[in-house]
Amino acid sequence: SRAIIPAKIKAGRVQRPESLFAIMDYTSYFSRDVKCMQYSAIRRMAGLTLQSGIISFAGGAPSAATFPVAEIKRIADSILELDGQAALQYGLTLGFSGLIEAVVDCSLKRKIPGVTSSHVAITSGSQQALDLIGRIFIDPGDVVFFELPSYVGGIAAFRNLQAKLVGVRQADGGIDLEDLISKIEECKQLGHRAKIIYVIPNFQNPTGITLSLEKRKALLELAERFHLLVVEDDPYGEVCFDAGLMDQLIPIKSMDREGHVIYLSTFSKILSPGLRTGWVVASQPIIEKIDLTKQTSDLCGSMLDQRIVAECWKRGIIQENLPSLRDFYRSKCQVMLRAMEAYMPPDICWTRPAGGLFVWVTLPDHLDSEKILGMALEQEKVAYVVGQPFHVNDKGRNTLRLAFSKESEDNIGLGIQKLARVFRNHLE
Amino acid sequence: SRAIIPAKIKAGRVQRPESLFAIMDYTSYFSRDVKCMQYSAIRRMAGLTLQSGIISFAGGAPSAATFPVAEIKRIADSILELDGQAALQYGLTLGFSGLIEAVVDCSLKRKIPGVTSSHVAITSGSQQALDLIGRIFIDPGDVVFFELPSYVGGIAAFRNLQAKLVGVRQADGGIDLEDLISKIEECKQLGHRAKIIYVIPNFQNPTGITLSLEKRKALLELAERFHLLVVEDDPYGEVCFDAGLMDQLIPIKSMDREGHVIYLSTFSKILSPGLRTGWVVASQPIIEKIDLTKQTSDLCGSMLDQRIVAECWKRGIIQENLPSLRDFYRSKCQVMLRAMEAYMPPDICWTRPAGGLFVWVTLPDHLDSEKILGMALEQEKVAYVVGQPFHVNDKGRNTLRLAFSKESEDNIGLGIQKLARVFRNHLE
Repeated sequence: SRAIIPAKIKAGRVQRPESLFAIMDYTSYFSRDVKCMQYSAIRRMAGLTLQSGIISFAGGAPSAATFPVAEIKRIADSILELDGQAALQYGLTLGFSGLIEAVVDCSLKRKIPGVTSSHVAITSGSQQALDLIGRIFIDPGDVVFFELPSYVGGIAAFRNLQAKLVGVRQADGGIDLEDLISKIEECKQLGHRAKIIYVIPNFQNPTGITLSLEKRKALLELAERFHLLVVEDDPYGEVCFDAGLMDQLIPIKSMDREGHVIYLSTFSKILSPGLRTGWVVASQPIIEKIDLTKQTSDLCGSMLDQRIVAECWKRGIIQENLPSLRDFYRSKCQVMLRAMEAYMPPDICWTRPAGGLFVWVTLPDHLDSEKILGMALEQEKVAYVVGQPFHVNDKGRNTLRLAFSKESEDNIGLGIQKLARVFRNHLE
Repeated sequence: SRAIIPAKIKAGRVQRPESLFAIMDYTSYFSRDVKCMQYSAIRRMAGLTLQSGIISFAGGAPSAATFPVAEIKRIADSILELDGQAALQYGLTLGFSGLIEAVVDCSLKRKIPGVTSSHVAITSGSQQALDLIGRIFIDPGDVVFFELPSYVGGIAAFRNLQAKLVGVRQADGGIDLEDLISKIEECKQLGHRAKIIYVIPNFQNPTGITLSLEKRKALLELAERFHLLVVEDDPYGEVCFDAGLMDQLIPIKSMDREGHVIYLSTFSKILSPGLRTGWVVASQPIIEKIDLTKQTSDLCGSMLDQRIVAECWKRGIIQENLPSLRDFYRSKCQVMLRAMEAYMPPDICWTRPAGGLFVWVTLPDHLDSEKILGMALEQEKVAYVVGQPFHVNDKGRNTLRLAFSKESEDNIGLGIQKLARVFRNHLE
C-alpha cells in the first residue's frame, strides 16, 4: 500500500509536468486526522458570494467600519517608536503580560470573580483556543455536545481531532436541557466517553439566540453532575443591543465553583479580527496544558498585535468604542428585521437577536436552502450561508444564516426584498 | 477513574481556595496527546538564565539589534494609513497574497524552481508549519528521523503527536547516511512505519553544522528509495558568513523531482520573529491539507504582520539588511571561536559554524553539562543551554549549546573566559 505511482503514469499518458511539484500521490502518507477533515461548504461558496454586485449576507466577519483605524495607527506608531525592539522580538507563549492584564481586567468587568494572570492564555483568535482545548482534552471517539445549530469553526476544530459530535436541540432560551440529558444518558449506554459541552451563550453564531440565565445555572449543574466540561465561547457578549439585557448575560464561568467551565472570548468583534487576539480563562492546570500545547503550535502569537490590543484596552479605546459599535449593529439588525416583517412570505420563521451579527431563518421543511441559494445568486444577486454545515447531525437543509454586518442599511433592505422574492417563488 | 476529588480534600486539609479556580482534578479528562507532552528543560531553565548580571549564551533568539525598527515603523504607518481597514480584517487562511508573492520570489532566488503561489502556505512562524505538517502526516507510532542533536521545537512538535522519534548520527558534513539507512531498515524489521526525515541543512540548530551538497543529493535519493518525506527546515540559510559558500547551500527541495520534500523557512532570523511569519513550500496536495488544518488551528495569521513583512520584502528592506546582518553575526561568531581557541582547556571540542547563531560544545564523556550549568550560573554568572534535550535518544549529557546572538562582543569574550574556567575546574 506504499507504492508511489507518479500521477502522469497513473493518468495513463506521459506529459511534461507543469512544475517540479505534486507528482507523487500522498494518499498513503496522510494521517487519519487529516483524512477526516472536510472543506467547509461555506468556504466553498465564499468565492461565489464575493462576486461584485452581490448583496451579501453570507460572510460572518465584523464590519471594518467599526475598527478604530486612526487610533490603532497612532498606537502602533508609539509602540514601534518607544519599544520597537521588544515588540518585534519573540515573546512568552501564554501571551504578552500587558494583554494578560487587560484580559484580567476585562474578565472582572464581565463579573468572573477571582481571575488572575495565571488563569489567562492569549491565543491567535478564539479559533486557536478551540483547537488547543480540543488537543488537550479530546481522544478520538470522545463525545462533544453541540447546540443545533452551532459555530462551524467550533464543529470543525473538534471534528478534526476525531471527536464524536452529538447535536442537542436548541429553543428560544438556548440549549434544550432535557434533550441534553437524554443525549448524555444515551452516550453512557453506548459506552461513549462524554467530555465537553460546547455553547455560545450570547447572540449565538449562527442563530443569534441567547442562553437564559436559568439555563446557564442548570447547564453548569448538569456539567457538575455528569462530570463534563463546558466550553463557553463568548465572542459576541459585548455586541449587545439592549443595555438592560447586559445583567442577564452573566458568564457561566462566573458561577463555576469547581473548574468545569473554560471561558473563551476575543477582541475580534469589538476591535479587529486581523489583530489575532483571543483568550482563554480557565483553571491553572488547564492554562499550563495550553502553554505546553501552544509552545509546539506556534511558540508565541504576534507580539505587535498583542501590544497594540493591550494599549487599546489601557487607553480605553475598546471600551469607548462599544456604544457606537452597538448602535451600528443594532441599527443594521433593526433594518433587517423590519424588512423581513414587511416582505417575507408566511411559513418562513426567523430569530430576533438582541445582539451579535446574525439572524437565523427557517424555511418550510420541504425547501432546500442550498438549491435556493443558486437561484438567489443568479436571479437576484443576493447571498447567504446555508444552514446545514452548522448542524452536526446532518439536518438543517431548510435553514440559512443572514449576517447583517457587511451591507449598508439600504442594501440590507433591498437584499431582504430580493430574498423574499426568491423564497416566494419557491413557496408558490 | 472519573472521580473528582477537590484539591483541598486531596491535600488532607481544609483550606479556603485562593480563587474559584482549579479545585477539581483534571487528570482523567486530559487527552493521551497532552499526557505525552513534556515541559522543555530549556524553558525550565530560562528563568535562571534571564537573571540580571548573567552573561547568557542560552537563548536562541536573533538579536533585536538586527531588526530594522525604523523602516518597519514607517511601513506599519503607511499600511494603516492607506489600507487600514483591510489590514485589520480577517484574511485568507493560507496567507496574504502579497506575502505569498514575496515567498515565491524568495524561493526562486533560493533556486527552488517552479514555485508558484499554489505551492506556498504562510504560517505563524515555522513552528506552526512543523505543527501542521505533523498533524497532516503523523499517526501515533509513525517514525520521524532526527539528526542527533536536532531542534527542540521540531522534536516537541512531532513528539506531541505521539510520533516515534528515532535519532541518526551526525558528523561534520551533516547526517550520517549509513546510520540513517540502518535505522530505516531496523524500523522496517520492527514493523514500524517510517514517514519523515527532519533535517536542518544550513547552520543547524543546535550544532551549526551544514549538510554537504553530496549528502543533500544522497538524502533525497534515500527518501525516494524508501518512500519517505523530507522536512527541510531552513531558518538560517541566509545567515551565511561566507558569500562563497552560498552556492553549496542548494535547498534539497530544488532537486526534488517527485514531491518528497517539504521546505520550511521564516522571516524570523532575517527580519523579526515577533512578526509571526514563516512559510511552507510544498506540492499543492500538501498545501491544500495545510489550508484545511490551519483553518481550524487559527483561521488566519496576523494580517498586519503579514502586510508589514510583504512590504519589507517589496521595498527590498530584508534583502538590503542581509549584508550587515551577516557581518553582525559573523563578527560575534569569530569573537566566540577565537576566545574558545584561547581559553578552552584541551579535551573539549566545538563546532566552527559558517553561519547561523550557534556553536556546539562537547565535553569529555564523564561530564554532565546540566550539573556544570548550576556552577556556571552560581560561580561565574554565565549561562548556556544543556545539550540533552536536543537528543531524541536521551544521550548528549556531556554536550551544550552556545548562542552568540545576544551578548556584546566584549561579553562574549568575557563569558567564554568564565566558562573555560568552570570547565577547567571540572577537568582537574
